[in-house]
Amino acid sequence: MPSFSPASGAGASVSVDAHLERVLAGVAPLARVERVPLADGSGRTLASSVDSRVDLPGFDNSAMDGYAVRRADVATATPLHPVVLDVVADLPAGSDADPVVGPGQAAHIMTGAPIPEGADAVVPIELTDGGTARVSIGAPPQAGHHIRRRAEDLSAGDRVLEAGVVLDARRVAAAAAAGLAELPVAGLPRVAVVATGSELVEPGGPLGRGRIHDSNSLLLAALVAEAGGLVSERLRLPDDPELLRDWIEGREPCDLVVFAGGVSVGAHDVVRHVLADLGTVDFARVAMQPGKPQAFGTLPGGTPVFGLPGNPVSVAVSFEAFVRPALQRLLGRHDVVRPTWPAIAEIGWSSPARRRQYMPVALRVRHGRVLARPASPGGAGSHLAAGLAAADGFAIVPELVVDVSAGDLVEVTVTR
Amino acid sequence: MPSFSPASGAGASVSVDAHLERVLAGVAPLARVERVPLADGSGRTLASSVDSRVDLPGFDNSAMDGYAVRRADVATATPLHPVVLDVVADLPAGSDADPVVGPGQAAHIMTGAPIPEGADAVVPIELTDGGTARVSIGAPPQAGHHIRRRAEDLSAGDRVLEAGVVLDARRVAAAAAAGLAELPVAGLPRVAVVATGSELVEPGGPLGRGRIHDSNSLLLAALVAEAGGLVSERLRLPDDPELLRDWIEGREPCDLVVFAGGVSVGAHDVVRHVLADLGTVDFARVAMQPGKPQAFGTLPGGTPVFGLPGNPVSVAVSFEAFVRPALQRLLGRHDVVRPTWPAIAEIGWSSPARRRQYMPVALRVRHGRVLARPASPGGAGSHLAAGLAAADGFAIVPELVVDVSAGDLVEVTVTR
Repeated sequence: MPSFSPASGAGASVSVDAHLERVLAGVAPLARVERVPLADGSGRTLASSVDSRVDLPGFDNSAMDGYAVRRADVATATPLHPVVLDVVADLPAGSDADPVVGPGQAAHIMTGAPIPEGADAVVPIELTDGGTARVSIGAPPQAGHHIRRRAEDLSAGDRVLEAGVVLDARRVAAAAAAGLAELPVAGLPRVAVVATGSELVEPGGPLGRGRIHDSNSLLLAALVAEAGGLVSERLRLPDDPELLRDWIEGREPCDLVVFAGGVSVGAHDVVRHVLADLGTVDFARVAMQPGKPQAFGTLPGGTPVFGLPGNPVSVAVSFEAFVRPALQRLLGRHDVVRPTWPAIAEIGWSSPARRRQYMPVALRVRHGRVLARPASPGGAGSHLAAGLAAADGFAIVPELVVDVSAGDLVEVTVTR
Repeated sequence: MPSFSPASGAGASVSVDAHLERVLAGVAPLARVERVPLADGSGRTLASSVDSRVDLPGFDNSAMDGYAVRRADVATATPLHPVVLDVVADLPAGSDADPVVGPGQAAHIMTGAPIPEGADAVVPIELTDGGTARVSIGAPPQAGHHIRRRAEDLSAGDRVLEAGVVLDARRVAAAAAAGLAELPVAGLPRVAVVATGSELVEPGGPLGRGRIHDSNSLLLAALVAEAGGLVSERLRLPDDPELLRDWIEGREPCDLVVFAGGVSVGAHDVVRHVLADLGTVDFARVAMQPGKPQAFGTLPGGTPVFGLPGNPVSVAVSFEAFVRPALQRLLGRHDVVRPTWPAIAEIGWSSPARRRQYMPVALRVRHGRVLARPASPGGAGSHLAAGLAAADGFAIVPELVVDVSAGDLVEVTVTR
């Protein structure tokens, strides 16, 4: 039986920032790039910047339903003394007609249709009698009024989307408008998630003495998907070093492995023992609550591996603080850490000295202020899986703060 | 050719709130419910509330690696005068051993293992010599110290998740911890999205005179997916009433139809003309910018249908204001409208009188304050598809405000 000494191989205590830096130094963007049709782009990460292939708009066009006119013809028009013009064309959007508007003429034109040659202004239909053969114009338009100019939004060659952004509906639409049919996106990082512990039983399964239902493998798998990764394997392993070694050796090809549980200093913390034997995994006591014991390194072959503490809140916090940033880096995303937003603590709570606290909080808005309060009565207690469900994010309390008082400004990450 | 009069059938001007109320009155939660394994639950909407099947924790267990002891035995222990106990068991997490700790005895116990009968406290390993046959205890524990009590988080029968919440990693994990294997979720609303306009060309396709690339069908499809719906069909239709009627008649079964384009009062606005002929669709001029002309009603057979104005920013804003809430209602979600958050306007802009403005804004945090600024120089101009890509959400400017000044508090919805 290994030593019980808590100091044995426990690693030095490091700050959250230092540990994150070590993690990020250990992962690089994946080289795999795919080209996907725009319809499949949402949620993917743009692998390289893309530029517009067209001018936007592509041609001078009408911003209104009305009449394209020569401004000089209607300069004197008033409601009492309207100018009457011959309507020489009817131009719906999508028309490929290419008429010329001469002196004394107008073209009936719909929003989006090209401004015909000769015309230099559009009179909205509301300022006319709406005539079809001849139209009576009751007011003079300003030069260029109601005309959207070619390329006023974007010119061909202008940057539309930067490498590293996450594609969503609006970015996909911008790419479509810019004449693109497909986009280069980062390959999906394949992530194996492994919950360890002989006490774990499949969800809903019968519980023997001392057994609990596994929630960590589902938590990790869903967090990986939310962060843009692809779960290559999801499994539970008992605290058996042989089974663990066998799995590591025979696992499906993947880009990242995440273990939950078994990284503390106890005799049965087999993830720690097996990973320590590899010699390529660091163990750190990170100055945070929850989530103190953290393992990070590589498996044989170079695959990055995390060993997270096993309590569900610790898993969720460790994922947010370290695994999610690593996944964002694998995806080539620029923003690997979620932004924090200011909120006002609705009630007070305490935080441990010299440790950064991640407090699950529920958020609400009152009178123009965002209010945060601990999501469960147990606060940051690391075994309160049910409380996690009520959290909208985490309040991140700095290392030097030991008391958060009602009314204090706190930084929150919104994860929902 | 229909009348050019702008008032013909234009509908009365209504507020955003009144139109939304009319929309929500026209859609009801879908009756379809599925049961899905927890692993497939993320992103789905819980169809009925679920309660825990187990106590959480399920048994008194150790919160630390250490020794389970009888407190009376070690009440006098000090570092200089430790108490020595016989170690009668070694209890890893997941052990089904059921030992009794008698007077003068202790059990080596790991985090999460059941507290053995007879023991009433846990001494952390750091306060012992870590012995295996006999252990030397250097300090007296407090009663119940380092013991997590059965059901202290949740009791069997307690509510875990409320009907109408969107499942995510943490909620799925809470359900797993509560002994559930699958969850009842709302069926996915099937949504047909149709971009109309004879000027539309497939993304990346060659452009003839007056043609533009369709971005609206992709925008709508991705917005539907982001809002929790399933796209049953995505297509483009030219401004041809016959083709439109044929599609409506022969469409795939679906729960909602969304048209973009063709709802204004022009002669070629065929969506308006075809829907108006049905007699079951209302046309409104909604007091908003952008997005004024809005159609909502039902198709033959009762399927709800939206007709949105066709400019991309109008589509995105109309979707946010009306279609997304309708989808949330179909899903049975409680919160059908996204919350707004306070932000400070970084620069000023103007807003039309008596219309609610949805200004695409980019957000950033500086010195504990969230700052919002128009995402593109063109502001709320409704044809700036490229600008939309830069927006993090919309600032919602009330009807009575005509000038937003730098430093003003504005309400924003964060959509990214």
